[in-house]
Amino acid sequence: MTTERIIDFLNTRRPDGPCLVVDLDVVRDNFTAFRRALPDSAIYYAVKANPSPEILRLLASMGSNFDAASVSEIEMALEAGATPDRISFGNTIKKERDIARAHELGVTMFAVDAVEEVEKIARAAPGARVFCRVLTDCEGAEWPLSRKFGCAPDMALDVLRVAHTLGLTAHGVSFHVGSQQTDINAWDRALGDARGVFDSLAADGIVLKMVNLGGGFPTRYLKDVPAAEAYGQAIFEALSRHFGNRIPETIIEPGRGMVGNAGVIKAEVVLVSRKADNDNLRWVYLDIGKFGGLAETMDEAIRYPIRTARDDDRFEPCVLAGPTCDSADVLYEKTPYPLPVSLTIGDEVLIEGTGAYTTTYSSVAFNGFEPLKSYVI
Amino acid sequence: MTTERIIDFLNTRRPDGPCLVVDLDVVRDNFTAFRRALPDSAIYYAVKANPSPEILRLLASMGSNFDAASVSEIEMALEAGATPDRISFGNTIKKERDIARAHELGVTMFAVDAVEEVEKIARAAPGARVFCRVLTDCEGAEWPLSRKFGCAPDMALDVLRVAHTLGLTAHGVSFHVGSQQTDINAWDRALGDARGVFDSLAADGIVLKMVNLGGGFPTRYLKDVPAAEAYGQAIFEALSRHFGNRIPETIIEPGRGMVGNAGVIKAEVVLVSRKADNDNLRWVYLDIGKFGGLAETMDEAIRYPIRTARDDDRFEPCVLAGPTCDSADVLYEKTPYPLPVSLTIGDEVLIEGTGAYTTTYSSVAFNGFEPLKSYVI
Repeated sequence: MTTERIIDFLNTRRPDGPCLVVDLDVVRDNFTAFRRALPDSAIYYAVKANPSPEILRLLASMGSNFDAASVSEIEMALEAGATPDRISFGNTIKKERDIARAHELGVTMFAVDAVEEVEKIARAAPGARVFCRVLTDCEGAEWPLSRKFGCAPDMALDVLRVAHTLGLTAHGVSFHVGSQQTDINAWDRALGDARGVFDSLAADGIVLKMVNLGGGFPTRYLKDVPAAEAYGQAIFEALSRHFGNRIPETIIEPGRGMVGNAGVIKAEVVLVSRKADNDNLRWVYLDIGKFGGLAETMDEAIRYPIRTARDDDRFEPCVLAGPTCDSADVLYEKTPYPLPVSLTIGDEVLIEGTGAYTTTYSSVAFNGFEPLKSYVI
Repeated sequence: MTTERIIDFLNTRRPDGPCLVVDLDVVRDNFTAFRRALPDSAIYYAVKANPSPEILRLLASMGSNFDAASVSEIEMALEAGATPDRISFGNTIKKERDIARAHELGVTMFAVDAVEEVEKIARAAPGARVFCRVLTDCEGAEWPLSRKFGCAPDMALDVLRVAHTLGLTAHGVSFHVGSQQTDINAWDRALGDARGVFDSLAADGIVLKMVNLGGGFPTRYLKDVPAAEAYGQAIFEALSRHFGNRIPETIIEPGRGMVGNAGVIKAEVVLVSRKADNDNLRWVYLDIGKFGGLAETMDEAIRYPIRTARDDDRFEPCVLAGPTCDSADVLYEKTPYPLPVSLTIGDEVLIEGTGAYTTTYSSVAFNGFEPLKSYVI
């Protein structure tokens, strides 16, 4: 997964300290694969996954739309060349003054999951289109979503009815099957619920137009994941099963699936030690950890592939930890991570599949360490 | 816990967005209380808890020493007026070039917990004093430490012997009883282990001088915690019990206990909603969450007191969540948090006891949200 271009960059530039290097060629290929796999869906790149200007500019130039979580992400998408009609304010939790600002910037599509949020939008962005997020189960996802976003399908009916009454356009339904979702059939049940919402509202004369299929498309970490085409096929079949020949507009919001495999973090081994003479587990400490960009190792959820120059040697499991004085800054301990026995202080390691959800998770200065540097090539 | 000075500041300045306000008068009182409670111990403030220059300057002027986790924290302490002999490089995981830099800056005391680290120090900071961190159990701590730092007492003997052989000064032993430690007797067993290390090395002609009692001193969140005097008394008794009339030099490294109760975060309610018509739990969303400074709510470990202007009303439990599109950004759900039933969108809330481990944990820009602002008054 580490491309020749990334290896060349690291060999030539020899950047000091931990850093992420993202290969734009991979992002380009991913975008093309999504477009081919889901030719009838509009792609809204989830900016939060990696908001580097170079990535946003590339995707804007390829015709991508953008899913923004905040006003600042809307501004970044605009700066990258997207027009406001290509931006969705996809966070269901928004301050009214941020909605007003988005409206001022020309954004017309907003996510909601509560009547209270609809009321804010009606006041601050009159005439906007809203889609209501519906709760769904996340079985099969490696980074499962909580109940934080979305409401029960029955409540979604109320939410969209109130939107209609307040002069907004009740535009559609969204759901999210969980991040790093490896079950291609996960979309099926949620689409059944979506169809139910379409039908109930149609009976009131409210015609929904759009289903937002969310994100969840995985990137390859240690295990193989189905290719984009497999997702496209399964989603198309589920859409046909539930909506017959009246398939609505659909959008997808890939984040991890768009940039995850495009990035590699270069890090350094700071210490290899044991805790006691009879300890059979090494501790390997890197110069990057949970607070320097690898937040998704929380509860050991995401297990990144790690490459070293000693991968021809014998491997033994070790506890892998970060460089801060925080005891929670341990990456893999419950399931120790196999690394070459000869790994030693000063060695470089490549942490693959780190293009998404790393740089922006990085803390500002915990323990005085700088945030993760990023190079987009 | 919100002081009049903080309330005045918030009422006068009306800062926009979530922010931390730290009252230096409280820090001053805490320092004085530690000095009184442990008059024979040198105080090394754990800079990582809150490295605001105003706090470091105040503590430097009061005679505090500093426990630094990185070169950058060493530089901050120097800038605040501390001389290098008042700074301990307390992180057991250090790059050799960072040790060299600290040595260049005049720092002479370093933490270790492995022979491999001692070798780096012997090369990069010849002649330095080292203390070896010993593993201890953390029963009674609300933010317990993992096995990440420290080694078994037997291994500590090897570590300090190697230090001595390589021309370093084997200076002492350190341990850490766990952060937010509410059992005043937690120091006792560790001091027994420390005495064992002192004795074994004395038999080899290596005379240790210092015991670093670490941090762990709690701040008051929802429950009362023992006062500094109680800790001082218990520690003095344990020292006497284990070291008799040959009590070594001791140092303490308070972080949370020095600044935790000095700070209050002002935040805003962004949304109050339910997930279904028959849902009996409200969801309250704030404009600050796990990635904006409240990282210590991880696994609901630290439970902050929250004040609102509606605290005379009836309380009902709710799920409390942050503003990002990340489903893990939920503060309290397993144990829902009681808040006034009348709490509503736009209300201000004060999150107390947030002076430590908040600003620097904040992510650089997750979801495009700015890092937590901080005002020290």
